Amino acid sequence: MDQPDKICWIAVDWGTSNLRLWAMDQNNAVLDRRESGQGLNKISDGGFEAVLTELVSGWLPKSNAKIPVVICGMAGAKQGWREAPYCTVPVRPDELAAGAVSPPVDHARLSVFILPGAKQVEDPDVMRGEETQLVGFMADMPDYDGWVCLPGTHSKWARVQNGAILSFRTYMSGEVYGLLAQNSILRHSMADDWNDDFFRDAILKAAGQPGDFLHRLFGIRAAGLVGNATLPGGPATLSGYVIGVEIADMVPRLTPGSAIALIGDGKLAVLYETALACHGHSARLINAETATLGGLCRAYTVLAASLSPDF
Amino acid sequence: MDQPDKICWIAVDWGTSNLRLWAMDQNNAVLDRRESGQGLNKISDGGFEAVLTELVSGWLPKSNAKIPVVICGMAGAKQGWREAPYCTVPVRPDELAAGAVSPPVDHARLSVFILPGAKQVEDPDVMRGEETQLVGFMADMPDYDGWVCLPGTHSKWARVQNGAILSFRTYMSGEVYGLLAQNSILRHSMADDWNDDFFRDAILKAAGQPGDFLHRLFGIRAAGLVGNATLPGGPATLSGYVIGVEIADMVPRLTPGSAIALIGDGKLAVLYETALACHGHSARLINAETATLGGLCRAYTVLAASLSPDF
Repeated sequence: MDQPDKICWIAVDWGTSNLRLWAMDQNNAVLDRRESGQGLNKISDGGFEAVLTELVSGWLPKSNAKIPVVICGMAGAKQGWREAPYCTVPVRPDELAAGAVSPPVDHARLSVFILPGAKQVEDPDVMRGEETQLVGFMADMPDYDGWVCLPGTHSKWARVQNGAILSFRTYMSGEVYGLLAQNSILRHSMADDWNDDFFRDAILKAAGQPGDFLHRLFGIRAAGLVGNATLPGGPATLSGYVIGVEIADMVPRLTPGSAIALIGDGKLAVLYETALACHGHSARLINAETATLGGLCRAYTVLAASLSPDF
Repeated sequence: MDQPDKICWIAVDWGTSNLRLWAMDQNNAVLDRRESGQGLNKISDGGFEAVLTELVSGWLPKSNAKIPVVICGMAGAKQGWREAPYCTVPVRPDELAAGAVSPPVDHARLSVFILPGAKQVEDPDVMRGEETQLVGFMADMPDYDGWVCLPGTHSKWARVQNGAILSFRTYMSGEVYGLLAQNSILRHSMADDWNDDFFRDAILKAAGQPGDFLHRLFGIRAAGLVGNATLPGGPATLSGYVIGVEIADMVPRLTPGSAIALIGDGKLAVLYETALACHGHSARLINAETATLGGLCRAYTVLAASLSPDF
């Protein structure tokens, strides 16, 4: 980093497994970027500040000005750095920024703001991190009226309208897929032979009969044993059954004719796009990091306006 | 064991995690019983005979007669002692006995017979061990016409009629429950506070909407976070959702008016009985060890009749 004096604030997405940091200038342009494996589950008592300080060393301007650090994600969980209580849906970007908490920090140059997550009381649900991606998405599309899907470990579907998150629905799809593929009897059927046709076929089977999920899973293993050979396309079939059960439950809930956006990257986002296409729905793909950063910028802008002028 | 000379044969149920052995007299009465943790997944190359020999030491009569050892379960799997190829449904007890394989054994006094499992080609499915329990069940109830449920890691539902296993259906319920309770985010919601009402409530919710399984699971975690407290009855709710999805898929397949038997022990069998009662079905409980031993006795009787008189 050869121009730390241009750094105006620092954006952080502090998740369960990893964290990402961006050095930002006064126009919210990215000057530098870092990643670390020091996610929430690697940090023991009180280690958050030490990890942050280490990662932003070299980013602090020569002046003595305090640098705001705006953090979203699991750092605000009860077991995180400092709990930022959930905002209840329907929730708007300004409310989320207003709900930021500031842990005491020993480092004289850092001023930390941890953003809250969102919760839903009826049909209980929670998110931490995705709400910031939704804020970034809404900043780019202020008039959006439709659904936003955020595939992942705990896949989320949010209803977005008039610049607010109205409601949302989480599915444990990613975590269940991982446990089945790595820790269950199905690990013996996970040859590295991805096959798009098997994925589509599994999506359609799940659509036709979502309730037989626990039986269909065992069929992945049994099909290989009955044929005295490994079933081809095990990973694609498993992925299709798991995502297919999620999509089959979600599709009837989609407001007819409403838009669908997918915030995600790489293969997983394409799989969700394919699964939706099997149901006759098209989705707009949004880059996940762009959305996260957009949400952190929006939060910083709100926070900066409320800070004293000499901050 | 003070009367080894009465021992006529040895019955063994060799599963994935454990094995159980019974010393039997000529009238198929149990003279002694042993258990061991040396299941299939603990045994490396060729260790089966050594484990067996160690466990039956002290059970061999003083005469030089060979002792038949009749084994059911995973010892006959491809990765077991010696593969006993599956019999295809519909399958009768005599066919299973006839499908037994005998691995070469160094010990001069032991003559080993490993029973096959059963497979189903259309709607692919397999079982190893449960078919022997079904044989034991049918020996006691030769005219039974109905369904038999065998709850467990891979829960099975078999259609039994005229002394044959016609078809069956496996659900990964037990394994999925274990992975979710121990390895997923839901492990944080597994306080030791079993509550029958929460179990029944979850069974009914799963019956009403089995397709939202992956969402409902996350609700177990979220309900605690939204209320800023641990959700009471986490284990009962999770168990109810998992068993409930299985039962909700199975109940419409039950032939109207046909009998239901449950082969199992302890709490799990009672949970299945309760879940079926929520759907208006009653089930007859059958002790699992009695069924296993009955099936091994039936197999021994068939095998003994086919052995040379000087055996």
